[in-house]
Amino acid sequence: MKTDKKQELIAVGAQLMHLKGYNETGVQEILNKTGIPKGSFYNYFKSKEDFGLLVIDYYMEFYNKIFSKYLGDKSVPPLERIRNLNKWFNNAFRSNNYILGCPIGNFAQEMSDTSPVFQAKLKKATDIIVTYFSDVLREAQELGHLSISLDANKTALYIFNSWEGAIMSMKVEKSIRPLEVNEQILFDYILKA
Amino acid sequence: MKTDKKQELIAVGAQLMHLKGYNETGVQEILNKTGIPKGSFYNYFKSKEDFGLLVIDYYMEFYNKIFSKYLGDKSVPPLERIRNLNKWFNNAFRSNNYILGCPIGNFAQEMSDTSPVFQAKLKKATDIIVTYFSDVLREAQELGHLSISLDANKTALYIFNSWEGAIMSMKVEKSIRPLEVNEQILFDYILKA
Repeated sequence: MKTDKKQELIAVGAQLMHLKGYNETGVQEILNKTGIPKGSFYNYFKSKEDFGLLVIDYYMEFYNKIFSKYLGDKSVPPLERIRNLNKWFNNAFRSNNYILGCPIGNFAQEMSDTSPVFQAKLKKATDIIVTYFSDVLREAQELGHLSISLDANKTALYIFNSWEGAIMSMKVEKSIRPLEVNEQILFDYILKA
Repeated sequence: MKTDKKQELIAVGAQLMHLKGYNETGVQEILNKTGIPKGSFYNYFKSKEDFGLLVIDYYMEFYNKIFSKYLGDKSVPPLERIRNLNKWFNNAFRSNNYILGCPIGNFAQEMSDTSPVFQAKLKKATDIIVTYFSDVLREAQELGHLSISLDANKTALYIFNSWEGAIMSMKVEKSIRPLEVNEQILFDYILKA
């Protein structure tokens, strides 16, 4: 029961923070949405910061599921898995009318400079995402689908960064075009060899 | 005199918003930093939103100077100008210890979903930046320094997005590495032909 309420608070807070950011989301607002009394918030969480770090864990748990489902799908050739992952995300972005974007990217932009605790947490989170990409690139190289002259770690970081930037532009344009351009250039020029 | 105080408020507000974001920066905090009485803020600006839009103009004025200085420098081959621009930004990022990042990117992440007025303003701003890149790519194509098979508009958007994403990762890593990787892959795989 205790865990249920804690999880409920995290899920509701995660949704609010995804749209409005960490600072703009008040503890009171989260409590109002859940009907859980204020006193209990601080039974579950030491502070709003502690809560925010658990929101990052919540999103990373979700990302781990999606990334391992698509990028770890051995029934599909490695580079094709990146297209499938993009397709999944693009459908999600479309169904949200191009708002929200990447929760990890949003936290990274908002919190990396003002909180060393969030910065360290986000470094671990982004490293995990980048590693999914480097693993799939190395698999493609081992199968001869991708030139071994390409540095898998650097290219993985580059794929992650260009994806995050394209998501930012999607939010500005309110269209999927930046993500489509992103995939096209990635495959036409970088992952072609 | 009136204009001086207005400009002073914008400059101080711009600095605060660059680090903390739009929502986290209070009007009172800007007034405290400048010593200008509260009443006068609303003589100069209709609202905080009106003020925020002028902060974007303030940064775009600065960006227009830097981008036209480096990307419009006819004494340098077009693609080399992109390297010079990167060098200028990377030096600025280093001297700020990898905080702050791109003010336009920060506003884009924070405000695109919650304010249609900011979203429209940021669309115009990012279009201007992308056009600097597409112009220089077309110039490179005309001189035969870059394959004409490359779509200048799409590639310019891609360059902008991967740059914004690399800046985000720089803030998370507190290192210049994501931007160095970005330039290396851009020139080795996309701008090489």
